[in-house]
Amino acid sequence: MITKLVMEAMNQNNAEQGFVVPIGVSARHVHLTQADVETLFGSGYELTKKKELMGGQFASNEVVTIVGLKLRAMENVRILGPVRKASQVEISATDAIKLGIKTPIRESGDIKGSAPIAIVGPKGVVYLQEGCIIAKRHIHMSPEDALTAGVNNGDTVSIKVENERGTTFNHVQIRVDKTYTLEMHIDTDEANAAKISTGDTAIIIK
Amino acid sequence: MITKLVMEAMNQNNAEQGFVVPIGVSARHVHLTQADVETLFGSGYELTKKKELMGGQFASNEVVTIVGLKLRAMENVRILGPVRKASQVEISATDAIKLGIKTPIRESGDIKGSAPIAIVGPKGVVYLQEGCIIAKRHIHMSPEDALTAGVNNGDTVSIKVENERGTTFNHVQIRVDKTYTLEMHIDTDEANAAKISTGDTAIIIK
Repeated sequence: MITKLVMEAMNQNNAEQGFVVPIGVSARHVHLTQADVETLFGSGYELTKKKELMGGQFASNEVVTIVGLKLRAMENVRILGPVRKASQVEISATDAIKLGIKTPIRESGDIKGSAPIAIVGPKGVVYLQEGCIIAKRHIHMSPEDALTAGVNNGDTVSIKVENERGTTFNHVQIRVDKTYTLEMHIDTDEANAAKISTGDTAIIIK
Repeated sequence: MITKLVMEAMNQNNAEQGFVVPIGVSARHVHLTQADVETLFGSGYELTKKKELMGGQFASNEVVTIVGLKLRAMENVRILGPVRKASQVEISATDAIKLGIKTPIRESGDIKGSAPIAIVGPKGVVYLQEGCIIAKRHIHMSPEDALTAGVNNGDTVSIKVENERGTTFNHVQIRVDKTYTLEMHIDTDEANAAKISTGDTAIIIK
């Protein structure tokens, strides 16, 4: 079975040339609980799908305005579905400076003690005492991909992008799950600093 | 003489631990000719100094609004002095996306075929047919620093920044001149992607 998995993965990726990972660039976005969706958009409201994303997520048609402690606002921030167990706002370090808020770099879901932020929708407002983070660079992969790449869940690797700017991202966390599609997730600062667009690829270097 | 220079440089920097370079983060800014200063601020006007910068440059008190081809504007863009032989606007890739303009990554001064941009001042307007660039990463150093670091003018090196995010910038150009103070120049995208502030340091790795 393992041999079969390895063989399948090897067909897609050649270890000699380095393990290749496609990159997905995340713009600032919001994840919401169903309760918060209803507060913002009205009782019984459900997010509507605009575009399918990797890993069963989708960009919704719904957007909100976020407002930080210094009362500076960002409009048209996209909500990603499906709804989650906790609401969370993911911004870039550039956004954090513009909003004037101190925002920690965190793994998605790790919001304890993160920045407070207000979310404004057409029917109401949600104030998160914590929940605003800058997402930590990471790579989603299936167990088969992990086997081929020779990495394990929780490992930290470096990822090299060879293009006009030329950048190596260190401290990139590996997250392995059966449901994951192979993709490195970076934010718009990282993408722009390294001249990367969604669909570009990087090589794992250990 | 060379020995003396090397000894002096060695006192400041230890090659065994890697050559250390302080980093300066450049926000979007404008360089102007004296003629363009006068068009924007009035006949006979001279830039006034707000803050001294490295290498004899200064941040002026004067700011302008820049407007790209799609008529999107950015306000309060700082002018750096002293005046130059050609006007030039330096923005980040994030800014370029916001302005909706295609902007090449270039060395300062290499503006041929770069993006057009309008500059608006309180007394007039300048339209640059070319002159808007994203600055290419580079390191300014004196001949003594170059000797200690073991690099030459025009070399390309990699620079590693060890912090929470952890990033290596490849394709970093070395520029050696007697008038240069040791400093790596990066833009706000690069700084924010790598969690760098002005005054942080990086190590040259070849």
